[in-house]
Amino acid sequence: MSVQKEIPYKIYLEESEMPTAWYNLRADMQKKPAPMLNPQTHQPATLDELSEVFCRELAEQELNVTDPYIPIPEEIRSFYKMYRPAPLVRAYCLEKYLDTPAHIYYKFEGNNTSGSHKLNSAIAQAYYAKKQGLKGVTTETGAGQWGTALSMACSYFDLDCKVFMVKVSYEQKPFRREVMRTYGASVTPSPSETTAIGRKILEAHPGTGGSLGCAVSEAVECATSTEGYRYVLGSVLNQVTLHQSVIGLETKAALDKYGVKADIIIGCAGGGSNLGGLIAPFVGEQLRGEANYRFIAVEPASCPSLTRGKYAYDYCDTGMICPLAKMYTLGCDYIPAPNHAGGLRYHGMNSMLSELYDQGIMEATTVKQTEVFQAAVEFARVEGILPAPESSHAIRVAMDEALKCKETGEKKTIVFGLTGTGYFDMYAYEKHNNGTLTDYIPTDEEIAAALAKLPEVE
Amino acid sequence: MSVQKEIPYKIYLEESEMPTAWYNLRADMQKKPAPMLNPQTHQPATLDELSEVFCRELAEQELNVTDPYIPIPEEIRSFYKMYRPAPLVRAYCLEKYLDTPAHIYYKFEGNNTSGSHKLNSAIAQAYYAKKQGLKGVTTETGAGQWGTALSMACSYFDLDCKVFMVKVSYEQKPFRREVMRTYGASVTPSPSETTAIGRKILEAHPGTGGSLGCAVSEAVECATSTEGYRYVLGSVLNQVTLHQSVIGLETKAALDKYGVKADIIIGCAGGGSNLGGLIAPFVGEQLRGEANYRFIAVEPASCPSLTRGKYAYDYCDTGMICPLAKMYTLGCDYIPAPNHAGGLRYHGMNSMLSELYDQGIMEATTVKQTEVFQAAVEFARVEGILPAPESSHAIRVAMDEALKCKETGEKKTIVFGLTGTGYFDMYAYEKHNNGTLTDYIPTDEEIAAALAKLPEVE
Repeated sequence: MSVQKEIPYKIYLEESEMPTAWYNLRADMQKKPAPMLNPQTHQPATLDELSEVFCRELAEQELNVTDPYIPIPEEIRSFYKMYRPAPLVRAYCLEKYLDTPAHIYYKFEGNNTSGSHKLNSAIAQAYYAKKQGLKGVTTETGAGQWGTALSMACSYFDLDCKVFMVKVSYEQKPFRREVMRTYGASVTPSPSETTAIGRKILEAHPGTGGSLGCAVSEAVECATSTEGYRYVLGSVLNQVTLHQSVIGLETKAALDKYGVKADIIIGCAGGGSNLGGLIAPFVGEQLRGEANYRFIAVEPASCPSLTRGKYAYDYCDTGMICPLAKMYTLGCDYIPAPNHAGGLRYHGMNSMLSELYDQGIMEATTVKQTEVFQAAVEFARVEGILPAPESSHAIRVAMDEALKCKETGEKKTIVFGLTGTGYFDMYAYEKHNNGTLTDYIPTDEEIAAALAKLPEVE
Repeated sequence: MSVQKEIPYKIYLEESEMPTAWYNLRADMQKKPAPMLNPQTHQPATLDELSEVFCRELAEQELNVTDPYIPIPEEIRSFYKMYRPAPLVRAYCLEKYLDTPAHIYYKFEGNNTSGSHKLNSAIAQAYYAKKQGLKGVTTETGAGQWGTALSMACSYFDLDCKVFMVKVSYEQKPFRREVMRTYGASVTPSPSETTAIGRKILEAHPGTGGSLGCAVSEAVECATSTEGYRYVLGSVLNQVTLHQSVIGLETKAALDKYGVKADIIIGCAGGGSNLGGLIAPFVGEQLRGEANYRFIAVEPASCPSLTRGKYAYDYCDTGMICPLAKMYTLGCDYIPAPNHAGGLRYHGMNSMLSELYDQGIMEATTVKQTEVFQAAVEFARVEGILPAPESSHAIRVAMDEALKCKETGEKKTIVFGLTGTGYFDMYAYEKHNNGTLTDYIPTDEEIAAALAKLPEVE
């Protein structure tokens, strides 16, 4: 063991040490993620096609599998400086609580008003929309983290922001809605009467609480049918994992600064934005033969796209108007059981991460939500931060790995992503506090039924 | 103008630069704040008397007007390191938005789960309770910031925590309640049937939504009638401003590090805990003739204790069982109008700050809540942080002072305390967003009627 500088509770990089370019892991992958396909022709989506849905520069980023570094524009870096660098925290208190020889670190992305890492990509997407001269953008939001982040970003660049919010969240999370309105966004409960797809869904399922896939479809329809608008998305896409690489780059810079080498890197996995951003620079190092890490994706047992899904082309949205992506998926109609309160509800996984998983570079595991909330409360009490349920999936596995070290006596270094705070998730915590939270693991038959609906692609 | 190092958006001190002792401004005041009085005898409260209500070491701190520095115990410093040092933020975006030559800085205390500066004193009070071998502590909470902070602190030291929460907040802020429960506290809506004073108030005012004064009384009764418990308080007391001096000490260290001298220092003022902590080291400098600052206390127009109250001995609680303090007060029965949503509802002002105001060392001003929320939203949109309504009182006046600089061309340096975030105050923001927030300024007759009830003290 080399002599190390004493490690503070929180490592803050200097502003001058912040990344000046995003890292595009796909450039360093020998076998690249499969390209997106046009949903009608099933041919690889072209820049022009993608530019009808997304801002042009973002479409370019989506297609870029060759440039390892993409400079972060100065305007975005200025915004980043309002809430970044984010601290890399040494979890001294958690280590003591677990009585483990392991060293635990977490990259905390919750110290901004959106409450999560989503802001890292929101500001980038708003910037390119503004640069393109657009009037505004549309998006969907479930729990509201992404919608809040985008509202903040659009407010900063004076862009209009139309958010379609899953109806059940709109009703259960009025505070998130008000944060978005405070930042000037218009928030519409989805499904709504304002779009053709919304009306169709309402006709088929009157009184439905909505779903993320349905909200995506409404947002895409609204963007493509409104002059001067484009659709933006907070996860799943490779442009998003690109922007989120600031998480991993800062994490790596902070570890390097103190001469610390991680053994295990853990992230929660919904669409894959945080996980992809966190692990990208470390995977790059590994692909170049410079390191040997274990990467663990943690998904909810009730939405197990990597561990129980199929690696196939699928629609990104229920409305089937977005491009097709090759990914581990449960089928675009898959919706987790109603008792699921832990987030990470998306049916598929980012295509780059799917490819890394398929190549065996990244592992994946599932956790049950009762265990996740138990870990969340233990973490909150010893580390002070009340974590988002999503982030708590990573906490659960980090704690489990640290407890394994306690058994074996191994002094491993465990790094995980603490993507956000749970201040707007108190309904779920209330259920946990009252002992009424339950688990649900889909049966093989349910998974098979969902997968049977995958589109046929040559 | 001297050459300065380039100032980052956020100045983070190193852990090694964090204060190792709290600063006790009273030691440097020639004319000290008046002593607390025993509520029965009207004689100065003794250490033994105070120790029946408060932990002994905290009672000692309350009476200590001679030691300028009181070491921060190592256990408390360890906890501080989990969320401190707090950043001193250069408000570049706000300056640009206001188009002002002024330089604006704010000390941001909201980056912890309690969402405010209250944690600085909560952890100290929990520590001394634990050290004294107590089983637990009781307290009151209104909006819930203090209750949350104390729950976190008690969880850390494995102390029982009984919180009496003003009933109207208990019902309107279920999320705050759940955060406290998540940290293991028991939360009782006040007034309750669990105390004699609670039953008495319920009998006199059935269906009342409660008040902070009433909740204080219940908490004190519970503590003094339960073996192994003491009462702890998050504001008003001089022990609290002592603990909160970490805010001012860090602020001063950060400014000194970059060679910046403040001209105006602004804080919101409820009971005075944040304001007292923020300005203390700067006032000390001024009393020693080393500087010349303007200190501005900002209070709500609907609860104007400094600007329209009387400097007199008054009860700290409606139940009249706490010691009497000499302070600017509106009378312990004073309750702001029901439309008041901005916090800072306490009827009196910390005795040290009252004395500074009486001596003309500190100014005070009032602001109307519609103007406060307007400032809050503008600030949120340009600086990213959604501020607590309380903190937004300081934002309002900081913005006004910066706009005066724009008129005069003066390049003043303005520092204010951003005490917390507004994530749990979205009801109030919703009213603002819907345009239904109103103002209320008490009439002279209302103030006079409240003041007529002040106790007669020789």
